Amino acid sequence: MQSDNPTAAILVIGDEILSGRTREGNAHYLSQVLNSIGIDLREVRIVADDHDQIVAAIRALDKSLGGAWDMLFTSGGIGPTHDDITADAVADAFGTGIEINDEARRVMTERWEAVGVEITENRLRMARIPIGARLIKNAVSAAPGFSIGNTHVMAGVPEVFRSMVEALQPELKRGRPEVSQALEVLRPESDVASGLREVAAAFPQLSLGSYPFKRGDQYGTSLVIRGLDGNEVNAAMNALRERLGL
Amino acid sequence: MQSDNPTAAILVIGDEILSGRTREGNAHYLSQVLNSIGIDLREVRIVADDHDQIVAAIRALDKSLGGAWDMLFTSGGIGPTHDDITADAVADAFGTGIEINDEARRVMTERWEAVGVEITENRLRMARIPIGARLIKNAVSAAPGFSIGNTHVMAGVPEVFRSMVEALQPELKRGRPEVSQALEVLRPESDVASGLREVAAAFPQLSLGSYPFKRGDQYGTSLVIRGLDGNEVNAAMNALRERLGL
Repeated sequence: MQSDNPTAAILVIGDEILSGRTREGNAHYLSQVLNSIGIDLREVRIVADDHDQIVAAIRALDKSLGGAWDMLFTSGGIGPTHDDITADAVADAFGTGIEINDEARRVMTERWEAVGVEITENRLRMARIPIGARLIKNAVSAAPGFSIGNTHVMAGVPEVFRSMVEALQPELKRGRPEVSQALEVLRPESDVASGLREVAAAFPQLSLGSYPFKRGDQYGTSLVIRGLDGNEVNAAMNALRERLGL
Repeated sequence: MQSDNPTAAILVIGDEILSGRTREGNAHYLSQVLNSIGIDLREVRIVADDHDQIVAAIRALDKSLGGAWDMLFTSGGIGPTHDDITADAVADAFGTGIEINDEARRVMTERWEAVGVEITENRLRMARIPIGARLIKNAVSAAPGFSIGNTHVMAGVPEVFRSMVEALQPELKRGRPEVSQALEVLRPESDVASGLREVAAAFPQLSLGSYPFKRGDQYGTSLVIRGLDGNEVNAAMNALRERLGL
């Protein structure tokens, strides 16, 4: 699809995902949010709680560090425990130090005092933020995420992740939201392939995809046309219906 | 965790995942299978239906091409339509050609003739296989996946993907399956962090993780100890319970 929309990547950090113990859901949620505001998600990576792997992925994905995409969102690995190493890895990727952030400490301390939670050294670890980063506040948990370069670092707990995405949304550079139309046919993919190919050639500015499915013993195909101009998507869908005799 | 187990990566190919239209499930399924047979999944990537992105990812992930991990499994982008470009990208990544594979054509033709499906040029596109690849048969669909180098190329339709994983399993190099024990406590992560850190230091050969969750208004933490030796995992879990006063 031809598009001048900003591009994005998601980096999910967590052994618990790779071991199969937990099914990843944050990337799926964020992919829908990005799609709705005209940001093109181009890549997702899931890596272990491993300092070098995280540093390498951030450098490969954040354009401000010479990476591939306009912005990067991370999920997971910020928190108080020994295996939460994301903040240190982000600081290293950006070649900056890390220290207790005054504003983060203030926000967290206020919240904890209000609910009577004791302030411990472990809890204060969550206020360690790379130097130069901006905080991402959230309504659910006291510990903030942060943004540095074009990278936005968020928690892995789904409720907290979503709250941080909401807080971040207003400041993201947006593009034209994609328009899509889908058509489901109970015919195998190979039956509709040549029709789809012809229509794709006639509408090079659109993205046409076919996604086979199986329902009981019946093979079917979901045909999806995506683009930035609703009229064009409409015209292409009409052409496709006609070509398929529907 | 200290381990001599073989390592693996998964590459998921598909615009429909990145756009948020479809939630990815094949990587989650395969992560559990790999874990059960002692193969350490170290990285997952999701990329678009984009030739160059697929080629670059295969080269970065398959050790036989100088990449990072012992084996690579791909999901999606094989099939009869214009947007199924995986087979060509795999051939390019391995510097080999692509052509109709005689065995694939024979298997597909037999299956189609048996069920009275017409053999068309589009259907035969699914028999295009990189030269030198070995076929992965499956019980669900006529079209085979294939293996080349250390890369195993499979379909994205979940039923077909699973069937191919089953066919492939017996020939994969296995390691020692991981043993894990989990403990759920209704205390925030920061409350258990220092205990966890101490036990982790006493059992450096094990992997200890803590995963915060929220249930209603209650914060809790799931503590997980993983390793290759069940007795060690047991001993570490006992030490952790004692340290947390449980």
